[in-house]
Amino acid sequence: MNNPVEMVEVWRGDMVESRHRGHAVVCDARGQVVAEWGDSGTVILPRSSCKMIQALPLVESGAARAAGLGPAQLALACASHQGAPVHVDLVRRWLSDIGRGENDLRCGAQPTRDKAERTRMVQAGEAPGQVHNNCSGKHTGFLTLAGHLGGGPDYVDADHPVQRAARAAFEDVTQQDSPLWVTDGCSAPNFATTLYGLARAMAFFAGARPDTGDARGRAAGDLVAAMLAHPMLVAGEGRACTALMQAMEGKVAAKTGAEGVFTAILPERGLGVALKIEDGATRAAETAITGILAHLGVLNRDHPTAATYLDAPVVNWRGIRTGRIRLAEGFA
Amino acid sequence: MNNPVEMVEVWRGDMVESRHRGHAVVCDARGQVVAEWGDSGTVILPRSSCKMIQALPLVESGAARAAGLGPAQLALACASHQGAPVHVDLVRRWLSDIGRGENDLRCGAQPTRDKAERTRMVQAGEAPGQVHNNCSGKHTGFLTLAGHLGGGPDYVDADHPVQRAARAAFEDVTQQDSPLWVTDGCSAPNFATTLYGLARAMAFFAGARPDTGDARGRAAGDLVAAMLAHPMLVAGEGRACTALMQAMEGKVAAKTGAEGVFTAILPERGLGVALKIEDGATRAAETAITGILAHLGVLNRDHPTAATYLDAPVVNWRGIRTGRIRLAEGFA
Repeated sequence: MNNPVEMVEVWRGDMVESRHRGHAVVCDARGQVVAEWGDSGTVILPRSSCKMIQALPLVESGAARAAGLGPAQLALACASHQGAPVHVDLVRRWLSDIGRGENDLRCGAQPTRDKAERTRMVQAGEAPGQVHNNCSGKHTGFLTLAGHLGGGPDYVDADHPVQRAARAAFEDVTQQDSPLWVTDGCSAPNFATTLYGLARAMAFFAGARPDTGDARGRAAGDLVAAMLAHPMLVAGEGRACTALMQAMEGKVAAKTGAEGVFTAILPERGLGVALKIEDGATRAAETAITGILAHLGVLNRDHPTAATYLDAPVVNWRGIRTGRIRLAEGFA
Repeated sequence: MNNPVEMVEVWRGDMVESRHRGHAVVCDARGQVVAEWGDSGTVILPRSSCKMIQALPLVESGAARAAGLGPAQLALACASHQGAPVHVDLVRRWLSDIGRGENDLRCGAQPTRDKAERTRMVQAGEAPGQVHNNCSGKHTGFLTLAGHLGGGPDYVDADHPVQRAARAAFEDVTQQDSPLWVTDGCSAPNFATTLYGLARAMAFFAGARPDTGDARGRAAGDLVAAMLAHPMLVAGEGRACTALMQAMEGKVAAKTGAEGVFTAILPERGLGVALKIEDGATRAAETAITGILAHLGVLNRDHPTAATYLDAPVVNWRGIRTGRIRLAEGFA
């Protein structure tokens, strides 16, 4: 077992004030490790970084086609969106299209992370709803699948047909039995795997195409194409997933997960990436994944977005730049 | 140089999802190390954990007495308050009493962290002001001292008499030359020291009494007494500093700092504590300092507040308890 490596430094003035360690691995569709930092055997929880895996049964079962879902809905099913009107409106319409309502969701109410919308809602005295939850697209996908597979209203129960299908897909694409599952922030089961298993799953997505292979492979191809076509739906304005995907011009899908996880799918290279910051810090995961994508040559270090994350400014309450977040010496 | 030790584990379901490492040291007024985890020689930025040091010149110069400041103002000078009405009203009155106004502050505008007040302000369309900044008490103290010492309006300049006095006091009580300074979140200089230096300074405060010793010692005694008398002014409702100080019934002062720093002053034991979480996480610093205070016997592990931080619940958007934050095996 290798120790985690120092990946990110938080500078203030002329000194490193904080450090973030982590594990990361890049592998190809055959499971060959192309690059590794720390220990790829570390068991992690992928959290939201594996939403495209959780969406596989929705597409491969035929439920998505039967419901007439297009790439926008598939991108939302893979999203940790910020609850901006564009996301919420699409979720509401999708729920209505499948004859469901917000009360059928099981993700819980979460305040929107869209600043203007949040101010508007507070001023209007509107309470946040389940549609504002960053996982509401994934959950509307679960509801769509539940309509197809059957089962009770509590589609987040681990033994519900929807979650049994999610687990089977997860273990198939990670090529590992999941040692345990936990309850995610949105109340759905989240399955543990090794970092290597998660990277291998991403490599499977990288090799998948919408028009070839078996139902699972075509479904994976559809989901990657949807993410690449709709980076704004996968997260939102100013968010790392969206900004990085836009900077890579539709060539790479990137997905954050809670507690410092990040995944990336590189279809042109046939590679999958999985990253976990040991302490769970999002700021570190964003800088580290940017470094890995630049290291792999799919993101230009000089692109303004890359530069923003590779040397992220720390600014104080008076707008003075007091520090920076950047890659640790020797990493990526 | 010892490596940082694992101090805090973040569990989700039945697994450790994230880990936090850190350094901590406890020492007495003679500088004897009573307990050490990791490396007490690590150079750190104390950030807000050293506000009582920055307030020393205000008191020892006689400026506080001349301005008629009482324990409430002194507690606010040491505070990272949450901008609740109780804090903001006191700062406004203090500014008025010394013939100054909000525009004389240099801490910058920060939204209040008091939920009800924040909602009220957003609904009323009121912009956050400098008085809402968590450091506005410290800065009003700086302004009070500037009125006494002279110097220009930019009292946060490193060569302003106020900051020269702060640095001299800092180097005196840490018993180390500060190798460098940075600009803090509130734009004031923040001086680097070793974790040991910071703990030694806290031990100096622990040994200080308002009615004995030299001017600096009496000033330190006044400041500790003020913090102990007004835990609600030092932070606010539901905040770790306030809750821990209340749980220890006026016997120990505790102070958080940005990027995972915590200090504690134990007057009855004559001990000072300094803690730095390597990755800068506040959640870890709160649990780790609670563990250290319990380890030292000044906080009962069964006290509801201690229990809350020693086994902090992680709850999801539907109110389901999905995990916990607790001390790492073998620490404290």
